[in-house]
Amino acid sequence: MQDDQPTIELEFGDNGLIPAIAQDAETDEILMLAYVSPEALAKSQNTGTAHYHSRSRDELWQKGGSSGHIQRIREIRVDCDSDTLLYRVEQEGGACHTGYRSCFYRTIDGEVVEEKAFDPSEVYE
Amino acid sequence: MQDDQPTIELEFGDNGLIPAIAQDAETDEILMLAYVSPEALAKSQNTGTAHYHSRSRDELWQKGGSSGHIQRIREIRVDCDSDTLLYRVEQEGGACHTGYRSCFYRTIDGEVVEEKAFDPSEVYE
Repeated sequence: MQDDQPTIELEFGDNGLIPAIAQDAETDEILMLAYVSPEALAKSQNTGTAHYHSRSRDELWQKGGSSGHIQRIREIRVDCDSDTLLYRVEQEGGACHTGYRSCFYRTIDGEVVEEKAFDPSEVYE
Repeated sequence: MQDDQPTIELEFGDNGLIPAIAQDAETDEILMLAYVSPEALAKSQNTGTAHYHSRSRDELWQKGGSSGHIQRIREIRVDCDSDTLLYRVEQEGGACHTGYRSCFYRTIDGEVVEEKAFDPSEVYE
């Protein structure tokens, strides 16, 4: 990451956001998907920690800003049609507010297929 | 996958679609991100091969329908707020129409960091 001006022209959606998949750079586990504004992307590049844009709160947020479970960015990739980002990260603690390391801890049938990584009541106030 | 009626109520977006990340179930490589309608999800579950909904063409499509590069679905997961799917798949050939196995073959600075898996001119007419 040289600067905050990507050489690839990104296709932000109608809402001004682009989806970003966060993947554990060590294990390749998929941790979460969230949305990124140009500002959140620039913050991610400039600070080296993942920032997103909350669609519900309509604001910039740093992943781990309250929990301490930050994501250190190892690499940012972009897909072939430049409308999805991939953040390859080092995840502190767990990515999911429910206590799992990955937000994808359930099958579509509702079966939980991961183990909890932390106790959310000790992390979030 | 027992039937086409998920026990989890999915949060389809305003456009009636939900993003789905396709991940290689063997290597954990992230292959692509595309969008899924209820119909595409049901087709994916009933046929065992990944189907999506094209936003540009506004139609159901089977991944690999023209190229033969289908995705056999091993498992479908859903994230904590039920607004993103994860297809864990066995990828035939490569996922990307450009000839790479993954659509995420470039960094945000434009550097190509993957090797081509096939010659698109031999696969797409």
